[in-house]
Amino acid sequence: MISINLKRSFIPLSEASPQAYLMQRRPAFSGNDAKSEDAIDSSCHEFPTLRFYFRVARAFTSGVMAFDRFATELLRYPAHGFSLDTSRMDIPADFYESMKGKIDKAFADMVALEGGAIANPDEGRMVGHYWLRNAALAPNDTLRTQITEPLAALKQFAADVHSAGVKNSAGGNFQRLLVIGIGGSALGPQLVSEAIGHNARMPIHFFDNTDPDGIDRVLASIGQNNLANTLVLVISKSGGTPETRNGMVEAKAAYEAAGLDFGKHAVAITGEGSKLDQYAVAQGFITRFPMEDWIGGRTSVLSTVGLVPAALQGIDVDAMLAGAAAMDTETRKQDVKNNASMRLALSWFFGCNGKGEKDMVVLPYKDSLCLMSKYLQQLVMESLGKEFDLDGNQVHQGIAVYGNKGSTDQHAYVQQLRDGVPNFFATFIEVRKGRDGDTIEVEPGNTSADYLQGFLRGTRSALYQSGRKSITISLPEVSPFQVGLLIALYERAVSFYASLVNINAYHQPGVEAGKKAAATFLDTLNAVRGNVTAEPKTAAQIAIAIQADPEDVYHCLNHLTANGELQSTLGTSPAEDTFSL
Amino acid sequence: MISINLKRSFIPLSEASPQAYLMQRRPAFSGNDAKSEDAIDSSCHEFPTLRFYFRVARAFTSGVMAFDRFATELLRYPAHGFSLDTSRMDIPADFYESMKGKIDKAFADMVALEGGAIANPDEGRMVGHYWLRNAALAPNDTLRTQITEPLAALKQFAADVHSAGVKNSAGGNFQRLLVIGIGGSALGPQLVSEAIGHNARMPIHFFDNTDPDGIDRVLASIGQNNLANTLVLVISKSGGTPETRNGMVEAKAAYEAAGLDFGKHAVAITGEGSKLDQYAVAQGFITRFPMEDWIGGRTSVLSTVGLVPAALQGIDVDAMLAGAAAMDTETRKQDVKNNASMRLALSWFFGCNGKGEKDMVVLPYKDSLCLMSKYLQQLVMESLGKEFDLDGNQVHQGIAVYGNKGSTDQHAYVQQLRDGVPNFFATFIEVRKGRDGDTIEVEPGNTSADYLQGFLRGTRSALYQSGRKSITISLPEVSPFQVGLLIALYERAVSFYASLVNINAYHQPGVEAGKKAAATFLDTLNAVRGNVTAEPKTAAQIAIAIQADPEDVYHCLNHLTANGELQSTLGTSPAEDTFSL
Repeated sequence: MISINLKRSFIPLSEASPQAYLMQRRPAFSGNDAKSEDAIDSSCHEFPTLRFYFRVARAFTSGVMAFDRFATELLRYPAHGFSLDTSRMDIPADFYESMKGKIDKAFADMVALEGGAIANPDEGRMVGHYWLRNAALAPNDTLRTQITEPLAALKQFAADVHSAGVKNSAGGNFQRLLVIGIGGSALGPQLVSEAIGHNARMPIHFFDNTDPDGIDRVLASIGQNNLANTLVLVISKSGGTPETRNGMVEAKAAYEAAGLDFGKHAVAITGEGSKLDQYAVAQGFITRFPMEDWIGGRTSVLSTVGLVPAALQGIDVDAMLAGAAAMDTETRKQDVKNNASMRLALSWFFGCNGKGEKDMVVLPYKDSLCLMSKYLQQLVMESLGKEFDLDGNQVHQGIAVYGNKGSTDQHAYVQQLRDGVPNFFATFIEVRKGRDGDTIEVEPGNTSADYLQGFLRGTRSALYQSGRKSITISLPEVSPFQVGLLIALYERAVSFYASLVNINAYHQPGVEAGKKAAATFLDTLNAVRGNVTAEPKTAAQIAIAIQADPEDVYHCLNHLTANGELQSTLGTSPAEDTFSL
Repeated sequence: MISINLKRSFIPLSEASPQAYLMQRRPAFSGNDAKSEDAIDSSCHEFPTLRFYFRVARAFTSGVMAFDRFATELLRYPAHGFSLDTSRMDIPADFYESMKGKIDKAFADMVALEGGAIANPDEGRMVGHYWLRNAALAPNDTLRTQITEPLAALKQFAADVHSAGVKNSAGGNFQRLLVIGIGGSALGPQLVSEAIGHNARMPIHFFDNTDPDGIDRVLASIGQNNLANTLVLVISKSGGTPETRNGMVEAKAAYEAAGLDFGKHAVAITGEGSKLDQYAVAQGFITRFPMEDWIGGRTSVLSTVGLVPAALQGIDVDAMLAGAAAMDTETRKQDVKNNASMRLALSWFFGCNGKGEKDMVVLPYKDSLCLMSKYLQQLVMESLGKEFDLDGNQVHQGIAVYGNKGSTDQHAYVQQLRDGVPNFFATFIEVRKGRDGDTIEVEPGNTSADYLQGFLRGTRSALYQSGRKSITISLPEVSPFQVGLLIALYERAVSFYASLVNINAYHQPGVEAGKKAAATFLDTLNAVRGNVTAEPKTAAQIAIAIQADPEDVYHCLNHLTANGELQSTLGTSPAEDTFSL
């Protein structure tokens, strides 16, 4: 006598029947023909015992079939402890065949890209982030040197800082880091710091915005007395990003207020000859590291942008690069079944119909990978969210990405994921190792890690039961090697997906519109500043005088009032509010 | 001679014409009849000068009209420095009239809810979070006392902790806090701490998951030597949340490893008589605060859940409550035009067609409000993401919410927002005050705050130019009062929206499925633990022996192997992997 766990109630069953039944019925199940099974089920309504056995066996068979599907579809790289499970996306077998032309093109595009083609045609640039972890693959010696020399230099620099070969202005060791950057120049370093920087030799702080209050809070958390031993890394590829420039100017003012020479505490990571590069020379920065134009901001974490802060934190940057190189080696193979990046890209394509019809919810079940969702939000959305395809057709592509971490998010929005609007597919990221060292049991026989695993598997099941699809990526641990591996997996998946939907993943033309509108607004703000007098005026009056958009003028006037430059008297509506010095 | 700023090129124009033209043409513009304007434009192709003036005036008029619309639609509460701008949602004037029946019902539902009706019918509970900031409104004395007594007690407790009237086990002051909670029992306190806890008397740490590695990192950041002066707040309404229970057990083990009595450092915030409540009594916790069943987790930030940690941090909890009460007073009025919560709910309804067809992207332009997006993700998605409406119809409701902060996110995914899949509407949250105290200029005449304002306005414009709609909420500053105001605004908007789409916003039935599936998985895990022997077996063999789902068994085996309990030998697929002790 055994029993089968059917919806948590145990139903007794003679030992042989389910397996025998399974073996016998197996061929009939091909094609997952649920209708005909339902027909069998109702056809035996006169034989309740037969129907009972049929139903039990059917449930059991369904579990075995799900495992079969999982086992057959699971992609794994045993040497790296990595696996990718797309079985819960319910991708039909003929999907891959139907995509063959696009897949072949994506592989061909990648060969061209890695060979040095102008893969970013709008900006006329090569796309070289895959070379960073294997310089030998770069198409010429100049490029190879642009990789190997900064890598050697940054490792030496970190060693010098750690040994006080590079001294702070008080003559001692630099003890902490302040990174000033935004977008790719902050998110990559933040991801790395959060994931594998917990034992950092130097704690790290970030200015990643132009919010003066936020800047003040970071400065307060460093403490004025610690500025002297804080090494500042200013990161901007173009060297002209206003947020980063502003952050640097704010930091410089703080150093000067503390009686310190900012340049003697600063390092620049920027394109050679950029404004920042020139400024760094003029201000006598400690050193500069180059950032090449064939590396995009959102794929710069394994360039100087990510590696300088990582090395200074004491993170094994060679292991990060080795992890990325290992994933590159696997995903460079033109073998769909065993190519994790291609399988991921195809799962996205299937999941959102190649048109962003569904959102991608990213749920890493590990606190240290919490920023992975935010990192992927940038990597995926900035790469894939494009108006036009490569042939100039208006396509409005993209995939919206969001998520934080599991199981925490189960208590936030999994309610909607399970029951609500079915507008997403999920990605679970599993980390198999619970913790370093010994663990306690939180109840007899179970650990916190058992629960974390239970919640991941339970949520995956509960979503699937209600028809919500998911991908599961499994890693053995969160280490420099595995972080490199994971980054490379997604970088190449994004490249492949862009090829599948025929877009340029490497430019960001839509960002310009906001920058231009912001510049116009600042022009207006300065014109408003010059026009307000002691006599109260409305926004419209000033707008006419300076020939600017009246609503923009109104917002400028409010901003200036809130920050103590003007006085205002409210009317019954904004059109009647007046402003004066 | 003046000039009009048309797409950043200045076009000369005689001074009188645009206004004169505007006044003259104004009536013709009613109804925004762009077609007829295009007809006029092309009809004057033989008169290039006329056409030139027409075009200039048209652009100017368009700016004036946009300002008119903004000024007319802007809702503001001048006493609180608050405003809500829905002008960029392009809501037609007749929308409000068309929604009248639903609006009236939503107002009536709210009156009933605040009057003590069973507004959460599935759980048979009242919904009382609006009473928390004005106990006089609670429907009876018992409820009033359940609000006023804990509030007085928690303020006294915080004062006692600060004055060392409550001492740590070393006889001194408690100096830091560790909050153990998840979902509403963590997100609210995290939001408050991030927004207004920067000058906290006691720094705050969180266990908000059951990740043992994450727990170890938090313990390391506190430092074993500081455990003695760390006050632990264990927060769980039901008292049975596994993640919180696990976190508490882990914390207790850490205290015991440091030779400390955990109970002498712990406070419980939980339902009276819950498992946690009983445990707190048995372990001699310092004190306990009640959490009533008429307060939902996601709306508990202004109950003991949020206020105990806030008061201990030294945050003015009365000001938080006053801010919420002020917003409640405004949004209790049955006047659509001046009711910010109703206007917000209607904007959501219009934006996503009452069906979650678009995502809500939340962009606070202020670092300290970064967690607002995550907080709203929970509040909105867990409240609105429901399978059935109140009449039992399957509706799959909800609105997906994501976002971090501006201008940072402009460098992450605004590319997709502007150019990519148009599947969202945005909410900008503007904070008018740049920083406390004096500011530097980052370039002659401009501050970091000018730039932040410029980026917000620029992004709003750029999105609108490409047809992406947005709401803008403006606050004067991030203070306890304003945080209370903002929380109350959204709480009531969610209540109203739920009425508009006829769902129960106060239960979370979908969370149960994941919990049950997790419990099944843990049962399986323990059965697997009891079945593995020295003889290698496959997952299927063990699954048959313990009558469990073979894939679950496989994941259990992998989990146990990764955490050192088993050994495995990989086959060519998971079905062939074998596991042994």
